[in-house]
Amino acid sequence: MSEKLSTQPYKGTRDFYPQEMRLRNWFFGVIRDVLERSAFDEYNGPMLESLDVYAAKSGDELAKEQTYHFTDRGGRDLAIRPEMTPSVARMVAGKMGELNFPLKWFSIPNMYRYERPQRGRLREFWQLNVDIFGCDGFEADLEIITSAINIMCAYGADESMFTVHINNRRFFNDVVATIAKTDAEGSRKVSKVVDKKNKIPREAYEKEMHELGLDDEQIARIDALYTMSVEEATAICPDSVGSAELRSLFDVLKKTGLDRYCMFDFGIIRGLDYYTGTVFEVFDNAPENNRAMFGGGRYDNLVGLFVKNAKISGVGYGMGDVTLENFLVTHKLVPETFGDGVKVLVTRFDDVPYESYTALVDTLRNAGITASIYLGQKKFGKQIDFAVKEGYSHVVIMGGSEAERGVVRIKNLATREETEVPQDQLTAQF
Amino acid sequence: MSEKLSTQPYKGTRDFYPQEMRLRNWFFGVIRDVLERSAFDEYNGPMLESLDVYAAKSGDELAKEQTYHFTDRGGRDLAIRPEMTPSVARMVAGKMGELNFPLKWFSIPNMYRYERPQRGRLREFWQLNVDIFGCDGFEADLEIITSAINIMCAYGADESMFTVHINNRRFFNDVVATIAKTDAEGSRKVSKVVDKKNKIPREAYEKEMHELGLDDEQIARIDALYTMSVEEATAICPDSVGSAELRSLFDVLKKTGLDRYCMFDFGIIRGLDYYTGTVFEVFDNAPENNRAMFGGGRYDNLVGLFVKNAKISGVGYGMGDVTLENFLVTHKLVPETFGDGVKVLVTRFDDVPYESYTALVDTLRNAGITASIYLGQKKFGKQIDFAVKEGYSHVVIMGGSEAERGVVRIKNLATREETEVPQDQLTAQF
Repeated sequence: MSEKLSTQPYKGTRDFYPQEMRLRNWFFGVIRDVLERSAFDEYNGPMLESLDVYAAKSGDELAKEQTYHFTDRGGRDLAIRPEMTPSVARMVAGKMGELNFPLKWFSIPNMYRYERPQRGRLREFWQLNVDIFGCDGFEADLEIITSAINIMCAYGADESMFTVHINNRRFFNDVVATIAKTDAEGSRKVSKVVDKKNKIPREAYEKEMHELGLDDEQIARIDALYTMSVEEATAICPDSVGSAELRSLFDVLKKTGLDRYCMFDFGIIRGLDYYTGTVFEVFDNAPENNRAMFGGGRYDNLVGLFVKNAKISGVGYGMGDVTLENFLVTHKLVPETFGDGVKVLVTRFDDVPYESYTALVDTLRNAGITASIYLGQKKFGKQIDFAVKEGYSHVVIMGGSEAERGVVRIKNLATREETEVPQDQLTAQF
Repeated sequence: MSEKLSTQPYKGTRDFYPQEMRLRNWFFGVIRDVLERSAFDEYNGPMLESLDVYAAKSGDELAKEQTYHFTDRGGRDLAIRPEMTPSVARMVAGKMGELNFPLKWFSIPNMYRYERPQRGRLREFWQLNVDIFGCDGFEADLEIITSAINIMCAYGADESMFTVHINNRRFFNDVVATIAKTDAEGSRKVSKVVDKKNKIPREAYEKEMHELGLDDEQIARIDALYTMSVEEATAICPDSVGSAELRSLFDVLKKTGLDRYCMFDFGIIRGLDYYTGTVFEVFDNAPENNRAMFGGGRYDNLVGLFVKNAKISGVGYGMGDVTLENFLVTHKLVPETFGDGVKVLVTRFDDVPYESYTALVDTLRNAGITASIYLGQKKFGKQIDFAVKEGYSHVVIMGGSEAERGVVRIKNLATREETEVPQDQLTAQF
């Protein structure tokens, strides 16, 4: 090959060099800490799934358009997973008889979507998925929202930086039906228009509403919902199950003190055909960035795609790594260093046997201290340069004369201080 | 959809339910601990790479045969990575001017190979990759072998359970040339036959050797290499650079005490066109399982595929999760529980406000204790059953009378002991 290969990663994907990887390991580590402490169990599934599972959930066309899909040599249509929900529904269905419900599960898989790369959206991304299966009550909705808030707070975020916007799909349907005064089918059509309210010009929105038989007063009543409190909004259809769900959720949010992170927002709808109860989105409050970072809600019985007569509801959310990282950077929540910061380079001289250095490094490592010998035979000054550039905090120096006297010198690279200690007291210095 | 979808994962892939995931997190955690303490830096790259990078390394046919590959809508030929080495070579090439050599890097990516699933080989697997770039000396070979031994020992394995079999590709070529008494091209042909010695019948082996001009005495001399010590073997071609490399590596292994895990093995060759110096394989010593689990060695200048005139040698190995797990299970090295084992379920009664339970759970979690409320409204006995099945160590009980008196009861599920404590002393009990 005379022509050299490109060093660029594939379009819409990223290389994680050690510096970026430390950041990722930190921010996934925070998530794991919070969720494991909350007794969520981690799971994972394969990167390739049958294309069918996405087609069954989202329709064949959308599934094919948004995924990387292909046919294997056995004629199986496969897709690289674009989301985790179908995989987890399949897994729950596969062991339904053995699993102890309610399940509290999470995963941080990598996945691919075939789309034009843009800010906050890449083709390869990692997505935290948190779900509770088999609990129909507000308790699961609360636990799910609590876990999202706890993760944000564990990063050092507070209520000035993010807000959880909450709505309820049953309430949404009922309040639209109440105001539109139509039957279920008519109300479904109105809902579809309301769903795209903010994506189309006002004129077009009103025109479509008029065509469905709504007058200006009805349109104004729907407009008013967007600025209402949860009490005002649910008073419009007080007997709706959705109203009751919303009120009991906000009631317990208030009593647990989580209400300072939350607000009612009629504008939160999410996929019309998918969610069935509580829906929520977590917004970045930064003015330059003000938008939903991630969200989720209650969906009923996805497991039913796999098992006849299964009735297992779920509530959960997915949080992408790209938007999360933008948020952490914007709000200066990324620490300057990760870990305890102690990292020791044992420098090397030709007049000392190599095994004397490996012995020092072994001693440090066995004491739980991050340590390496300088690999190579460069001059001392070059070894120090390497240590500084690679973020070592200390160097250990043992030339022929130190070795003879049974001592080592330790240089702190931040303070430039140097101390000499007996070799057997080395680890006590860190 | 009237027909239900399959709940099976795609052929040759695995679902990781929480139980399996805990095992994986433990065994990848051990690896990360060892390598981070040894100042190796973690990296990762995308799951999709240009098919070219595999074709350049392994040839177009092999690349296409062994990978999941397809063409994207922009006409790019892509493959799901079947190995990490081309990705890491691309990454090193991409930032060659900025990186501080020598690099000590590792990654634990998931990858796919298109092959028939069998014991120890699946289509989707995870593979630890450890590499050092930019150090030509024995120091890097030693550090790489040390890291593999340290990982095995961190799992609790000892020298009775595994052995590192070591050879050197330069030595291999030189000793074959010395015995065969042919030129470079002739010696290459002999090497190819020796490489397949154990995969073809003895008769066929001898026939091919005869055809290349070797007599029975020469064949016998090559046979003898398989049982020789490193001193005996290298004495055959004492001036070979490979002999010198082998001797200095075994010398330092002896001086550092690592020789008890290592042996010289002329049978270790690995990919003929790829490795250039030290090569090694780690064998499982269990009689029922006796075979190489993983291996690696020194390869020169893969970075040269991407950058003109680049000369960066590497030494490293890849360790697959499937064979590693088999090893750990065979040698009973998997712990029965992971973590500290404390996991608290706060049981729930209807006569106590829900926020009293969330307050208890918050207190526990804030103290770093894994805790959850029972989500749902089942009877107390069912809640205890759930706790036992899900591996909770304790349940906290607070009915109306306990709540009134400001106390909780704690039941240890292993000992069945129950104690009553004031609510504000709850966390001190764990």
